[in-house]
Amino acid sequence: MARVSQEHLDARRRQILDGAARCFARNGFHATSMQDVLGEVGLSAGAVYRYFRGKEELIAAIAAEAFAGIRSAFEDASRSTPPPTPDVLLGSVLRLFLDKRIEGADRQAYARLILQVWSETLRDEHLYATLSEGYRAMREVWSTLVDAYRANGLMAADVPADRVARTLIATAQGFIAQQALFGDVEVEVLEDGLRGLMSMETQSPS
Amino acid sequence: MARVSQEHLDARRRQILDGAARCFARNGFHATSMQDVLGEVGLSAGAVYRYFRGKEELIAAIAAEAFAGIRSAFEDASRSTPPPTPDVLLGSVLRLFLDKRIEGADRQAYARLILQVWSETLRDEHLYATLSEGYRAMREVWSTLVDAYRANGLMAADVPADRVARTLIATAQGFIAQQALFGDVEVEVLEDGLRGLMSMETQSPS
Repeated sequence: MARVSQEHLDARRRQILDGAARCFARNGFHATSMQDVLGEVGLSAGAVYRYFRGKEELIAAIAAEAFAGIRSAFEDASRSTPPPTPDVLLGSVLRLFLDKRIEGADRQAYARLILQVWSETLRDEHLYATLSEGYRAMREVWSTLVDAYRANGLMAADVPADRVARTLIATAQGFIAQQALFGDVEVEVLEDGLRGLMSMETQSPS
Repeated sequence: MARVSQEHLDARRRQILDGAARCFARNGFHATSMQDVLGEVGLSAGAVYRYFRGKEELIAAIAAEAFAGIRSAFEDASRSTPPPTPDVLLGSVLRLFLDKRIEGADRQAYARLILQVWSETLRDEHLYATLSEGYRAMREVWSTLVDAYRANGLMAADVPADRVARTLIATAQGFIAQQALFGDVEVEVLEDGLRGLMSMETQSPS
């Protein structure tokens, strides 16, 4: 029997994940069957099931990859002292996200896929665990950055770092939703928008 | 034949929408059948189809109601001069959103329902039209507010108002996503988070 190289296995796995991603982005997770995925990637059931036991495993793998991608973009972008301000940093991460393409699908498809992941998370414990863990890790990294902003005299307000972290993550999530829904997000919108907010006067609470 | 009062018709319509909302929030739009909706509201097919021709009309009505609710909360909250800053204003709107309950469902259900609406918008032209129009109107109202911030000396940076508007809407959308996914959003998180951002130094672009 011929030995199959790791490269070949990886390429096959990639091919299956990209095909599944196209199907989910196009028709939604629920309206996609494993049969649709097989048709899209042009492989036999035997070839595909060797890698993934079903739709749930496919979307879990897609979600894990997305988080790993965002995290590494974030770590690359934050590696300087003082850390880049949120407009610059979140801008870099969003740029990488928007440039991310599903092989053979349009620019909007990746954002739509993430929306499918969120939606499916409500009904899938495994996916929920993946997202909770990814989200927890993101909050931690952003909180560390917020502390660094304060230490470097870049942030005046004495608010819990985790709350600023969650707000910045929310802003990124919202732009993913806008890109999925309308497909018209440009990074400059986020960058200028955050700059506008950062230049505001805070009123003392009455 | 007995005349049926408008109140009765309205109450019946409300009952159907609440039942459909519970089903969609619980099982997702695609996994819910009209049969499930009938079972949930405890009415006959004839009684329900008199109001809504199918799932698509139900979710469109739910989306239109959600937008109307958010817009009126927003208009209530913004009616003062100078306008309340984003932390205060977005805080009031998010509070109203989080307090919004689907009759007979948990606190997280309403946010999950919105996620279902977003997800379904990708495949439904009518829903897409509703969301586009609602979103366009929101951007306009927020842009007017941003201009007022600047006129009142509350915002220094000279960035397009629409970009700040989209960023604030994104932040709200992101918190809806977090509430749908994790159910742990408190308004203070958004308020403090925005306050933190507003207190930052902006660096001049290099």
